[in-house]
Amino acid sequence: MSDPARKAVIIGAGPVGCLSAIALSNMGWEVEIYEARPDMRLPSSKGAAQQRSINLAISPRGILALHAIQPDAADRCLRAAVPMRGRMIHDTTGKLSSQSYDRSGQSIKSIDRAVLNEDLLDVASKTSNVKLFFRHKVIAIDFDGRTMQLEDMESKSNLSVPFHFCVGADGSYSIVRRQLMRVTRMDYEQAYIPHEYLELKMPAGPPQAPGGEPTFLLDPNHLHIWPRHSFMLIALPNQDKTFTCTLFAPTAEFDKLTSSDGIIEWFKTHFPDALTLIGQDALLHDFKNNPRSSLISIKAKPYHYKDRVVILGDAAHSMVPFYGQGLNCGLEDVRVLYCLLQSNNVDPLFTPVEGAVDESLAKALDEYTETRHEDLITISDLAMDNYTEMRHSVTTPAYLFRKNLDNLLSSLFSPPTSPYANDKSGVPFPTTWPSGWLPLYTMVTFRPDISYATVKRKARRQGEILSYAGWATAIATLGAGAAVAYTFLGRLRR
Amino acid sequence: MSDPARKAVIIGAGPVGCLSAIALSNMGWEVEIYEARPDMRLPSSKGAAQQRSINLAISPRGILALHAIQPDAADRCLRAAVPMRGRMIHDTTGKLSSQSYDRSGQSIKSIDRAVLNEDLLDVASKTSNVKLFFRHKVIAIDFDGRTMQLEDMESKSNLSVPFHFCVGADGSYSIVRRQLMRVTRMDYEQAYIPHEYLELKMPAGPPQAPGGEPTFLLDPNHLHIWPRHSFMLIALPNQDKTFTCTLFAPTAEFDKLTSSDGIIEWFKTHFPDALTLIGQDALLHDFKNNPRSSLISIKAKPYHYKDRVVILGDAAHSMVPFYGQGLNCGLEDVRVLYCLLQSNNVDPLFTPVEGAVDESLAKALDEYTETRHEDLITISDLAMDNYTEMRHSVTTPAYLFRKNLDNLLSSLFSPPTSPYANDKSGVPFPTTWPSGWLPLYTMVTFRPDISYATVKRKARRQGEILSYAGWATAIATLGAGAAVAYTFLGRLRR
Repeated sequence: MSDPARKAVIIGAGPVGCLSAIALSNMGWEVEIYEARPDMRLPSSKGAAQQRSINLAISPRGILALHAIQPDAADRCLRAAVPMRGRMIHDTTGKLSSQSYDRSGQSIKSIDRAVLNEDLLDVASKTSNVKLFFRHKVIAIDFDGRTMQLEDMESKSNLSVPFHFCVGADGSYSIVRRQLMRVTRMDYEQAYIPHEYLELKMPAGPPQAPGGEPTFLLDPNHLHIWPRHSFMLIALPNQDKTFTCTLFAPTAEFDKLTSSDGIIEWFKTHFPDALTLIGQDALLHDFKNNPRSSLISIKAKPYHYKDRVVILGDAAHSMVPFYGQGLNCGLEDVRVLYCLLQSNNVDPLFTPVEGAVDESLAKALDEYTETRHEDLITISDLAMDNYTEMRHSVTTPAYLFRKNLDNLLSSLFSPPTSPYANDKSGVPFPTTWPSGWLPLYTMVTFRPDISYATVKRKARRQGEILSYAGWATAIATLGAGAAVAYTFLGRLRR
Repeated sequence: MSDPARKAVIIGAGPVGCLSAIALSNMGWEVEIYEARPDMRLPSSKGAAQQRSINLAISPRGILALHAIQPDAADRCLRAAVPMRGRMIHDTTGKLSSQSYDRSGQSIKSIDRAVLNEDLLDVASKTSNVKLFFRHKVIAIDFDGRTMQLEDMESKSNLSVPFHFCVGADGSYSIVRRQLMRVTRMDYEQAYIPHEYLELKMPAGPPQAPGGEPTFLLDPNHLHIWPRHSFMLIALPNQDKTFTCTLFAPTAEFDKLTSSDGIIEWFKTHFPDALTLIGQDALLHDFKNNPRSSLISIKAKPYHYKDRVVILGDAAHSMVPFYGQGLNCGLEDVRVLYCLLQSNNVDPLFTPVEGAVDESLAKALDEYTETRHEDLITISDLAMDNYTEMRHSVTTPAYLFRKNLDNLLSSLFSPPTSPYANDKSGVPFPTTWPSGWLPLYTMVTFRPDISYATVKRKARRQGEILSYAGWATAIATLGAGAAVAYTFLGRLRR
């Protein structure tokens, strides 16, 4: 008789936790997911205070990760999403200008975070070697002893759960990360930005004909932005024809908006078109009832300890939401880990003797920390840079000039779309150096075959070429001018 | 009848916690100190595994803080210390070179950390409005409810303690800081450096005459350094004529030293003179039995929450030990807080109604965070810079040239010693802009009347003047050369 499969415990039943569970179950592990919150699919959980923004822009990195582990979930996700092909910039007079994300028309997809999460929960629930436990809160983890203490919040009793491998996918305020800090020398950094965010709902429009379908009040195939330099409003489309709007502003700006008149006046000044579409009553209702949430950026290293634990997603790298890569990156974490577990031949049926380390699992996790860290720091920093770009730079001529120059060079020196746009199974891992000229946004968003760290190096190289080209052009121009002047002077002398 | 005094709870009975307790008791607060460890003065605690290096180089910032709050303790501290007037650099051949810390002969003082701590514990114990509780461990703090949960580790029972104001002086792994993180948006960073440290004991030498006093094996009035670029050994004198040596080396270097022969061989190569003085057997004993400890740098902001809590010392700013300022800075924290509580007229006899905030205390704490943060980041960064200086730069000609240039300029443009060297009561707070030319080390170490942030700005200004002076000299030289050449050519023509 063969050994029973080893047990992996996943902490957190968000999209990253669920996808991790499905990946490990694919490999043959016995999986248990523990989540402190109630099952979000229960009717009683609906409408409960959301901790996270309900909207998500899923892009090829997230799709590819879903596809590598659960292709049907990737397809269902794409069907449930509204494609956004570019940014629509709204100025204070209501004038619109569209900036496409990709010159070949590729799009990112707006999807309700709950739809994706519930779908993955359904898949996990139906998988025979995955068990789900809700309202179970981790109290402490003894990684060396391979045991964790949990509180069953329903019965108010504590239980002790043995495990072989633990995945921490429990978000920004991760308990697994805190426990990991006790056994490793973790470099760790958390920083709050001065902006907070608040969600507002823009309703669907009336049907075009009586009895027809409701309509979108704004172009549904754009991510709408009202950049106002120190603050901004954005709007993402939903399948029910509504938009979810998010206001990002410094705490001090929010603090000024106390009275109903003040709020309306402020929106009239800065977002007159949005105010009309949202409606004054709905706006005031949301503004006064919805929570103002903070934005934190978290970096850590290492992400693992021996063969015992790894942290993924926001638990390992919370980032500000301005590149739309937070969850895409979290899902990619799962794909990268999945690839490394396979390439290191980690065997869930092999059980090391008590106290011993599974060397192949330890090596896979070590490679995960070493290869993934630069990627995660890169995307976290890019997200922070985009914090300024979205609310300010998108409106500047320098930004538009560079964007057009990038697109021009890209049309001259690269294939029109990713070579892997239609063949998800062919995406290489580890990633390779890309050929051609590729705008930064295209690489980050549409090329999961290029790691974030490679994106950074490629973008820096392209930047160097541009400054070299700029100088070369300047010198050539001066040279030509000198030649003309010389010829001209020569003629004068004759 | 007047109100009873409000209660301040101090977490941690190290030097910073004790000095805070004495400062608050001076102002009229009822003070309770809670410490998780047993009383270090008990015979049963002696020789217990030390968490921290036993040696401490106390300098005028620490002395001034003691002096401002408990002048007798400052005097006793100075009497128990061995003055060190400079660094003594040991090369691999055993050749020595002395670099004085200050051209006017000021010194830093080597003292056993336990001697200072026990003295402050004695003072606190004898103060009528201070109560000490050992083996009491904080579990959780409800700052809004002004209550903390503690475990009495002796009786294994939990207790709830009400308080008005809490001071967290519980070190690098502070529980108060972790509780503070739950109620504030704290920017926080921790980083381990690749070096670890290990302590070795160098014995006292034989008496000069039979029956006489033992002697020092090295010059007692220096901090001895064996800089070896990627690692180093240092030694500080003790009053009993021994030296405490500390080896700092990368983890990978330590990991190579496994066998007795290997350790001795390595010391013979790198520290032959130290090996002879320590003795092979004693060295091997310490090397194999003493713990290898890690070094962490921690930055945080804010340090307080409303009028409820403030964190001081290592709890707020662990730094690497290479500037010898860690505890000096922690003691200075107490002095700065003490000054701000007084300048804001915080009254321990005033009790705000339940739930209300003591606005003057809240303002004092707010000023503490705002004024102290730049100072703390500055000294933390300087300590990290000195990490390279001590083990490498001190041996380079460029370093020695700059040090001599600084001393020369300082002798030309500044008073020979601090204007406050002998008058501790006259030191201004907040600090002012210093006149004259002052070497960086002098300002950090010997001028507590200059804040760390001001030190940084002054040093930068001086650096700019030096580079300007360098260019000016170069230009003047070129100009003079051109004049000479012109004259010379003119003569040739004649």
